[in-house]
Amino acid sequence: MAKKKKSFRTKPRIPRGMQDHFAEAVLARRQMMGAIQDVYQRFGFDPLETPALEYVDVLGKFLPESDTPAGGVFSLRDDDEQWIALRYDLTAPLSRVYAQYHQGLPTPFRRYQMGPVYRQEKPGPGRFREFYQCDFDTVGTSSVAADAEVCAVLAECFEALGIGRGNYVVRVNNRKVLNGVLDALELPQDDFNSGQLTRLTVLRAIDKLDRLGAQGVRQLLADGRKDESGDFTAGAKLSPDQIDIVMAYVETSDGDRQAVCQRLQELVGNSAVGAEGVTEMRQIDDLLQAMDLGSDRVLFDPSVVRGLAYYTGPVFEAELTFEVEDEGEVRPFGSVAGGGRYDDLVKRFTGTEVPATGASIGVDRLLAALKELGKIGQSLQHKPVVVTVMDRDHLTDYQTMVGELRRAGIAAELYLGTSGFRAQMKYADKRQAPIAIIAGSDEFERQEVTLKDLALGQEMSKEITDREEWTSARPAQVTVKRATLAEAVGKMLAEQAG
Amino acid sequence: MAKKKKSFRTKPRIPRGMQDHFAEAVLARRQMMGAIQDVYQRFGFDPLETPALEYVDVLGKFLPESDTPAGGVFSLRDDDEQWIALRYDLTAPLSRVYAQYHQGLPTPFRRYQMGPVYRQEKPGPGRFREFYQCDFDTVGTSSVAADAEVCAVLAECFEALGIGRGNYVVRVNNRKVLNGVLDALELPQDDFNSGQLTRLTVLRAIDKLDRLGAQGVRQLLADGRKDESGDFTAGAKLSPDQIDIVMAYVETSDGDRQAVCQRLQELVGNSAVGAEGVTEMRQIDDLLQAMDLGSDRVLFDPSVVRGLAYYTGPVFEAELTFEVEDEGEVRPFGSVAGGGRYDDLVKRFTGTEVPATGASIGVDRLLAALKELGKIGQSLQHKPVVVTVMDRDHLTDYQTMVGELRRAGIAAELYLGTSGFRAQMKYADKRQAPIAIIAGSDEFERQEVTLKDLALGQEMSKEITDREEWTSARPAQVTVKRATLAEAVGKMLAEQAG
Repeated sequence: MAKKKKSFRTKPRIPRGMQDHFAEAVLARRQMMGAIQDVYQRFGFDPLETPALEYVDVLGKFLPESDTPAGGVFSLRDDDEQWIALRYDLTAPLSRVYAQYHQGLPTPFRRYQMGPVYRQEKPGPGRFREFYQCDFDTVGTSSVAADAEVCAVLAECFEALGIGRGNYVVRVNNRKVLNGVLDALELPQDDFNSGQLTRLTVLRAIDKLDRLGAQGVRQLLADGRKDESGDFTAGAKLSPDQIDIVMAYVETSDGDRQAVCQRLQELVGNSAVGAEGVTEMRQIDDLLQAMDLGSDRVLFDPSVVRGLAYYTGPVFEAELTFEVEDEGEVRPFGSVAGGGRYDDLVKRFTGTEVPATGASIGVDRLLAALKELGKIGQSLQHKPVVVTVMDRDHLTDYQTMVGELRRAGIAAELYLGTSGFRAQMKYADKRQAPIAIIAGSDEFERQEVTLKDLALGQEMSKEITDREEWTSARPAQVTVKRATLAEAVGKMLAEQAG
Repeated sequence: MAKKKKSFRTKPRIPRGMQDHFAEAVLARRQMMGAIQDVYQRFGFDPLETPALEYVDVLGKFLPESDTPAGGVFSLRDDDEQWIALRYDLTAPLSRVYAQYHQGLPTPFRRYQMGPVYRQEKPGPGRFREFYQCDFDTVGTSSVAADAEVCAVLAECFEALGIGRGNYVVRVNNRKVLNGVLDALELPQDDFNSGQLTRLTVLRAIDKLDRLGAQGVRQLLADGRKDESGDFTAGAKLSPDQIDIVMAYVETSDGDRQAVCQRLQELVGNSAVGAEGVTEMRQIDDLLQAMDLGSDRVLFDPSVVRGLAYYTGPVFEAELTFEVEDEGEVRPFGSVAGGGRYDDLVKRFTGTEVPATGASIGVDRLLAALKELGKIGQSLQHKPVVVTVMDRDHLTDYQTMVGELRRAGIAAELYLGTSGFRAQMKYADKRQAPIAIIAGSDEFERQEVTLKDLALGQEMSKEITDREEWTSARPAQVTVKRATLAEAVGKMLAEQAG
């Protein structure tokens, strides 16, 4: 019968691919996002918050970086029979907002937005269906100064978070230069109808440099490549001369940004769009220098492709370069942010092209990096001091103590359960309380109170079963005058911190 | 033809009942929620964040405070054919989290959660389909100390936000006392099958005291009441003696909490549950006194009913008492938070009753109150200084200026558009920039730079059409040595603030 009853109960469970975030995770993310917000605002970006839901036609039918149709979004019909969906990124809402309000907005319009986005895709390790994004964009200007500022914002964010120079690099490329090189090779434009996609195949090959190395990319630029599992990827069928030029382009990266521009100038030959791209890169270099951003922080790297369609000019990829161990292999931490210039932001609403540029920081990846570096969490010491209840008749006296501590700005709580001393110490342990306050009849009589330093005594207390045994085991504790409670607790907390 | 083309375009529009929040609104809310978070954490509540989506059966079928079925929630089928929905409050996710993880959580478990919730209801003025809630709850204890702390948290939140004593009051009642009074009157228990709902009718009548006054409540306790539109509401059909006792109960509120308890003691007669409720109120009074919370901040008020089912013990309602003008009428600002004790939190998951108590602050209402009081927004002066571009050949020089300002911690931006001086000043105006930086060839030659105080000169600049006219009109401006730019801007900002 108990079994039957049970089957009527709801099983508490979280939707597939979603996460709960408890105190430590919430506070770490909040601290990180606070630092990023400060940088964004110092650069003149204003916060914007849009609803989680948008009309499906406003979002567009496709995910920006793939050919996946709207099946990847969580969508439903509202009570007006309109299709609405949870946003899958923060760019689509920006498009809608700019198209809707642009006459009242300053132009150029600089905004940042942080918040969750939703994708109904196959979940996996580190891949969730609800995750945070943290975007900043400048809309309504084609000035490369806006692109140079994207690099500056990313670099300043890392430094504000304590990731020092040498541990990060912002890589910059320009789609126009890449197109110019392909023009100089006289590669045909892609034709999606006939399936002639030489340029796309070249882009995809370049995009795999990190993973496959130069040799693998050369194979993909030539006839094709068979991977370890035996799967064959068709190649772009370039000639050996063409392959050499593409590889020369890809491997142009260098510590000296002007030197990179010089070599790119040669590679684009007579291509007008290529020359335009190189000019933009030279201007970006000038502006970066004006902001004191040397090539130790911002590199020109032609191997940066960033997705396949979408971007039209400068593209950015920010990488953390400090090394981590991953399944026995030591490798750089990797990419944590990316972006670029795109021109079709509001075209489907207004019919006119509006240039925009910006980037998005991958919140979860960056948070993981900060944990790896030990740069987050230390200042999150908000865990409350627990005032234990030895004698329920003194409940108001304990409550008075809690009130005094809080008034002194110290996070504190009264033990609100009904259990005995041992369970209360376990509770304090689970709470990661820095200090437990203890007062029994002896203490009340002598107008004293005992402070147990749990940060010091945590290990010991686990083996202890009652108060007598515990007090004789001499863990870190002091007994002070009741009147000096808040002062003594403040002192002990300061000692723990220092 | 242009017309035809237009019909293919998507209209940029926001889903019905939803809002965009621009900079000022986002920053004001963030500031307010930051202050509330600090109080919650000082009281030992840990932050929790759950996904916006939950399984529909986990949320439960009904909205907590109404008989509306799940139609009021935004729901959809996911790719596993499971029904999921956007959360309509933060209590249902708390239930799920506690049921799912309680063995690993400290007991009692104190958590707070802030975030948007979603209701597919008819939108109206101030009623949105996405809005913020800001809850704190203590789960797993029946101790009234947890209830007393709810009052303390609410009072401290108001004070942390600058709402002084006398401008707010937390009203407390206890459902057990009310039930005791109804027991003493020998009213029958409600029977939903037969439709005999005398007690519910009495509760609903009391709940209308604010709106209808004592005379209206008396009518609803007797035979019924016809409102202005002619609609008739059936009454509870109590005898005149019974009505006198209910009214005596409702009007028991008094500045002296012990005096209220004394009178309630008499009204509950021999009812055991009533006596239990009065004892709880006496204990709450003791604990409030221990926390130095007098009756200027926390009142006992038997007219507080708070919804109809759901709560089982103490209930809370926090009201802002300062007066506002509303359509010519002067009235107190009104309720901004409420809560109470409830026992069925996880029963549908685990089969056992787990007591819990807490409250929810109405984010939008409280924000409106803070604006009314002028208590928010002053410290939001993040608006960037705008460095104008008089001469595009000097772009890197302007970028250098921006960089210097930011390094000095001053929010600053370069004008990134292509327009002339007048449009740039309009842009700075739209941005609400405190200062515009101006440097033309004269300034560069003399190694100087001009600072225009826009906070002072905003009005004047509107009538000015070009730079010559503007400079001769002598608005607030200074010309300083280029090397002292950041220092001079900092000084001007300080003057504006002070």
